[in-house]
Amino acid sequence: MEEDNITNTIELQDPLDYPKQAWTHFQLVHQKSPLIQCITNFVSMDFMANTLLSAGASPAMIHSVDEIPEFTPKALGVCINVGTLTPDWLPGIKLAAQVANQFKKPWVLDPVAAGGSSFRLKACLELLGLKPSVVRGNASEILALFKGCVDSTSKGVDSVHGSSDAVEAAKSLAQQTGCVVAVSGAIDYITDGDRVVYVYNGVPMLQKITASGCSVTALITAFVAVDPSHAVEATASALAIFGVASETGMDMARGPGSLRTLLIDSLYGLDEATVLGRVRINHL
Amino acid sequence: MEEDNITNTIELQDPLDYPKQAWTHFQLVHQKSPLIQCITNFVSMDFMANTLLSAGASPAMIHSVDEIPEFTPKALGVCINVGTLTPDWLPGIKLAAQVANQFKKPWVLDPVAAGGSSFRLKACLELLGLKPSVVRGNASEILALFKGCVDSTSKGVDSVHGSSDAVEAAKSLAQQTGCVVAVSGAIDYITDGDRVVYVYNGVPMLQKITASGCSVTALITAFVAVDPSHAVEATASALAIFGVASETGMDMARGPGSLRTLLIDSLYGLDEATVLGRVRINHL
Amino acid sequence: MEEDNITNTIELQDPLDYPKQAWTHFQLVHQKSPLIQCITNFVSMDFMANTLLSAGASPAMIHSVDEIPEFTPKALGVCINVGTLTPDWLPGIKLAAQVANQFKKPWVLDPVAAGGSSFRLKACLELLGLKPSVVRGNASEILALFKGCVDSTSKGVDSVHGSSDAVEAAKSLAQQTGCVVAVSGAIDYITDGDRVVYVYNGVPMLQKITASGCSVTALITAFVAVDPSHAVEATASALAIFGVASETGMDMARGPGSLRTLLIDSLYGLDEATVLGRVRINHL
Repeated sequence: MEEDNITNTIELQDPLDYPKQAWTHFQLVHQKSPLIQCITNFVSMDFMANTLLSAGASPAMIHSVDEIPEFTPKALGVCINVGTLTPDWLPGIKLAAQVANQFKKPWVLDPVAAGGSSFRLKACLELLGLKPSVVRGNASEILALFKGCVDSTSKGVDSVHGSSDAVEAAKSLAQQTGCVVAVSGAIDYITDGDRVVYVYNGVPMLQKITASGCSVTALITAFVAVDPSHAVEATASALAIFGVASETGMDMARGPGSLRTLLIDSLYGLDEATVLGRVRINHL
Repeated sequence: MEEDNITNTIELQDPLDYPKQAWTHFQLVHQKSPLIQCITNFVSMDFMANTLLSAGASPAMIHSVDEIPEFTPKALGVCINVGTLTPDWLPGIKLAAQVANQFKKPWVLDPVAAGGSSFRLKACLELLGLKPSVVRGNASEILALFKGCVDSTSKGVDSVHGSSDAVEAAKSLAQQTGCVVAVSGAIDYITDGDRVVYVYNGVPMLQKITASGCSVTALITAFVAVDPSHAVEATASALAIFGVASETGMDMARGPGSLRTLLIDSLYGLDEATVLGRVRINHL
Repeated sequence: MEEDNITNTIELQDPLDYPKQAWTHFQLVHQKSPLIQCITNFVSMDFMANTLLSAGASPAMIHSVDEIPEFTPKALGVCINVGTLTPDWLPGIKLAAQVANQFKKPWVLDPVAAGGSSFRLKACLELLGLKPSVVRGNASEILALFKGCVDSTSKGVDSVHGSSDAVEAAKSLAQQTGCVVAVSGAIDYITDGDRVVYVYNGVPMLQKITASGCSVTALITAFVAVDPSHAVEATASALAIFGVASETGMDMARGPGSLRTLLIDSLYGLDEATVLGRVRINHL
């Protein structure tokens, strides 16, 4: 850790040196160990918490309206995920977003299966109206948010579109909402409506691990929490670091079970040489 | 994959060639990647979703009454598990069963700890009245459903009876309800009230992995979803495939922690030779 | 297993031979396979259940007020954890504590993030008033209970204090409440307000595994359930056994992902020589 040259508002000397930028962000998460409040679905809680811990952040799964006004201000970022949504969770979710906004803490939205039902889509659109810093979804989810209608071809949480299909929708959505929009897939696209940054890291087998998308959204929250003024770059760094961890984990994996374990190990042990040598980010 | 000879309603040329049948069902799950809606307990969600993903199916953990009318018709099968039941989950559970019935989608019931309390038993019996395609439980659970009374010897989710103790109860229950009843244990018994099919695959250490029973019920749902007209055979195939995956996982396992991981890896990587060589199914 | 010299109320011939005592407790859990009811947070349910199973106990995650009066009396111990607390869970939690008391079953409290908010602190203090046999927390949690005020430095579930900082608070709290209080950390301290017992087992990487604290509390519940008249010793034994399992797991671990898996494997396979050679417990 070269802690000397890390400051709270990082200066990206060379904004095009993405691998170095990713390493800087990753170091910053270890240095600050940001408290990340997660309001997420029941499936992902365990893997998400372990992802954050292994990357150096401090997760807290807290969703009660009774403590959000007091707890959320202590967090450095909030991750909101609608995976196993029911109406009784919505007040807490919205309150956390509002408190985060009030205290100028970044919050990140994961619109799981946004096009799966009217109930879910409406909730996601309402949350989008509360102006998250970043929205991260697969192509089908981002397209559903953009079109604002239920997707008849929806297969639940799994995308039926390639990520490139949603790039233009993501740009428009970013322009309309002012949020950074990230479409994850074979290639990840991150856009603020103007620029588009591409992340090429990751392995296809991630799609066979439940909650891997949820977990990368939590990692994005941690990265944006430590560098809120560069949300596009921090999001790209988080996606790339998670992708690199999956790639190095894949070297020893025998299937999705062991990949999940090795991904956490890799994320915990990632060193500078691996990050600088492996991160593949580009832009137009 | 010999996709040529797979059709939507599979023809079992030789109904007694169970290993080949299991392989055909397994291929069909990969081919169709059925969307399986799971309404299950909090303990099992993660392992269940990973089990379905590794077997080629597409899980969706969705339980809100607000989206079931719109979402359940898109699923190819519904898995219902009462593990961490509270009264507020029952309306969604019953609605999902009813919508599945209405749209002629198979649904499978896992009556976890059915004999553990009057509340739980009543809920399971009501669900049984909604005519699931298949009920899968351990011997204690199936005996509780058959007798319709709380089991004073109940040890929660763990069976205090051997699976063979429940075969006659399973047959009677199947006759009374019209459901296929599967009793899992050292030997698994599957019956439609007339025939009884036996599955000999699996390892004892599965009992040391929480939610392994829940997960095999989800796998049964996926197998029955792709071959609803042969519920007995599809159930036997799912139990055998899961058992074979546990056997090959066991070759490298050092305990229940690694077995759980290796089981997922094995399920993901199972090939035809292993399935044909290992599946052990029989009938009277 | 030397089952001959194990009885229901164990006689600790040499109370200072802690390794032998830990092995005796561990054998007793395997022998009795105690049914442990867990009312715990969504994050920990899976890992907690697997921890109990691998140690020979029988977990049941049951939290509905509708079945607690009937189910809790069947359990040999109850583990209560407030991790993802909302007001609707409190009636079930309190009822389970009361039924456990009524039937003279030990119950153990895990006051997760007690100082994180007023809501959470109030709930924990109310539960403390229901007289658990044991309270197990990290230093920040025990200090929050002792001071009875919200901790402005709280980082959610992660302690911002070393365990030694809370020893005096733990002693006072134990004197005030009559509970055994355990502070876990680099060294674990267990006190009944008079004696203080130290456990030196464990590895720092446990802090990188979510719900490892929750899981050790469940293990304490199982150990106290089989030897309720020696709550201090049983708590120390459970902490030491879990710590030893983490140490032997650590020999092969590559990071927190594999350590979690190996910890379960180790707990499952721990033998007498390892326990006797590795357990490090002491007292003033």
